[in-house]
Amino acid sequence: MQDKDYMQMAAQEAVKAEGMTWTNPLVGAVLVKNEQVLATGYHHQYGREHAEVNTLAHLSDPKEAQGATLYVTLEPCSHYGKQPPCCKKVAEAGIKRVVIGQVDPHQIVAGKGIKYLESHGVQTEVIGGTENLNVAYNFFYRQKRPFVTLKYAMSIDGKINAAGKTRTLLTGDAAQIDVQRLRLQNQAILIGANTLRIDNPLLTVRIKNLPQPPIKIVLTRDANQLDFSSQIFKTRGEIWLLSTTNLSQKVTENVHCYTAANWTPTKIVQFLAEHEIQSLLVEGGSNVQAQFVAAGLADEIVTYVAPLVLGGTGLPAVFGQPAATKSDYQLLDVKRFNQDIRIRVRRKECLQE
Amino acid sequence: MQDKDYMQMAAQEAVKAEGMTWTNPLVGAVLVKNEQVLATGYHHQYGREHAEVNTLAHLSDPKEAQGATLYVTLEPCSHYGKQPPCCKKVAEAGIKRVVIGQVDPHQIVAGKGIKYLESHGVQTEVIGGTENLNVAYNFFYRQKRPFVTLKYAMSIDGKINAAGKTRTLLTGDAAQIDVQRLRLQNQAILIGANTLRIDNPLLTVRIKNLPQPPIKIVLTRDANQLDFSSQIFKTRGEIWLLSTTNLSQKVTENVHCYTAANWTPTKIVQFLAEHEIQSLLVEGGSNVQAQFVAAGLADEIVTYVAPLVLGGTGLPAVFGQPAATKSDYQLLDVKRFNQDIRIRVRRKECLQE
Repeated sequence: MQDKDYMQMAAQEAVKAEGMTWTNPLVGAVLVKNEQVLATGYHHQYGREHAEVNTLAHLSDPKEAQGATLYVTLEPCSHYGKQPPCCKKVAEAGIKRVVIGQVDPHQIVAGKGIKYLESHGVQTEVIGGTENLNVAYNFFYRQKRPFVTLKYAMSIDGKINAAGKTRTLLTGDAAQIDVQRLRLQNQAILIGANTLRIDNPLLTVRIKNLPQPPIKIVLTRDANQLDFSSQIFKTRGEIWLLSTTNLSQKVTENVHCYTAANWTPTKIVQFLAEHEIQSLLVEGGSNVQAQFVAAGLADEIVTYVAPLVLGGTGLPAVFGQPAATKSDYQLLDVKRFNQDIRIRVRRKECLQE
Repeated sequence: MQDKDYMQMAAQEAVKAEGMTWTNPLVGAVLVKNEQVLATGYHHQYGREHAEVNTLAHLSDPKEAQGATLYVTLEPCSHYGKQPPCCKKVAEAGIKRVVIGQVDPHQIVAGKGIKYLESHGVQTEVIGGTENLNVAYNFFYRQKRPFVTLKYAMSIDGKINAAGKTRTLLTGDAAQIDVQRLRLQNQAILIGANTLRIDNPLLTVRIKNLPQPPIKIVLTRDANQLDFSSQIFKTRGEIWLLSTTNLSQKVTENVHCYTAANWTPTKIVQFLAEHEIQSLLVEGGSNVQAQFVAAGLADEIVTYVAPLVLGGTGLPAVFGQPAATKSDYQLLDVKRFNQDIRIRVRRKECLQE
């Protein structure tokens, strides 16, 4: 096994906590000595021990770590946060060498972890290859705004809904479960008031019990016009209404109304950045998505193409607001979910490594 | 090797003539004796020898065929057309057994070939598995109308053109070459007058020199309004204008104008059926495609999805004319062409085997 293979193993550890770490990154670690894996570990949940500590805790005898190599997907932290700094623990454990997937872009770490290790006699090496574990986290600390993903299911003729005002269910079970996974990778999910009215979605993650489920955001001109008997208002977790008017009626305590004169996509991402939200999933509708496209704020697009035709008066995906220019994306992957096809593309400027 | 393996080999022979056989089906054959392949062959071109005769001609000594098994993708013909009946040749050659991919749906054969062989002491067996070689041919003789394929390239947000009146090139070279292959599988290609004006396409097959290139059809309200300096009018091969008015100006002899009060998709396919056209590729634009969808005349849809976003005012695929209901399709396949993705779906009623 080579360094990159152990790093791959560490990455497999990291993803086990998908959706559980909130603003923290996914991190996995593997401890190796004499080509034997001594222990593995990962950061399980926001506020809990980090991957390095978790891995060391799996040793039957702490002395085993002496002279070992630690593979960790992200630079060990160097600051006192909710947990004591991992660097210190790593150095104290007698680990000889730390192989790092990526340098932490968070300014509170950003190379300081490596510097600490080096100055305490621990060799370090950054080998790359794990940036995709934390796309939004990395993006957030580099660009100072959340990473925005647009998601929609469309017919083979590019429509998201049949003509009329009722919801058209396009995709099958497998694609719908995949959407659940997409949701748990995001800290916030946004829809427009039209989508709330027509689709009446839950916007919940039902495949995993999350300590902090994604914040459900409804973009509306007037929050008072919303139907508070909609399904979304029966779900647990934070619901934010972005409205131009104050909410006059009483709502349950998980619902918060924020007002602004004009909630443009730029304004929205700025607002979310101030609330430390690193990732936003825009689930619809057409017009809201067109606004994000027009603002140059569609970093990734995930579309599920279903094998049906809705015809010439169906509602097109990304519709209404003009975009200044065409934007080129990079194809990330294509995957079949039975009869449906998922296509993921990312803005070229957002591609890492 | 089993029967189906030899049949597969015969199918590989058949496709060699793709685009060359005009209204004739693709047919391939393999002659086998004592588990040895004695000869292979296929129908090369409209008007030339059939696959069976071509295969027999490859024997160094005609006597070798005695007692052999012939694998042929389509029932041998039993009538005198441009060629003498293959059944007769097969029986006379002393072939003992004929394994057939599919019964010929053409009423002039339709089981008569099998009957002839059986009555002349040749065993026959129909094993299936070759229907997809001649989707349009089979469809035409069963449904009495051409098989209609809609083709369009669209952005990830379901648009075929940017806002405005100029052409937007969406796909890369590999996808464009694939479109060439799609064209040679069709006997006619149709576009609307808007597409002629905006895209100014050639509609030619440039990857193979075809004896009968697809007929290029332009659907227009008034043929006199067409720009006869468009590229299409500089290409060889038949060009048909479907117009509501007679053409008053003089045009080159490969251009024919047909008039009707209203060229609906139903009227068009009926007209093509009368001209023995088995397959029609509708290449655009949006509105023409919406008309075919609305008429229930989109048997297959081939879309190329390109990794770019055209935004909220781009021209959607299949747009304008409402469809009565949503139509369910079956996903045939998904294929990547570098950055582009081809998705092929077929109407469930059109699926064979």
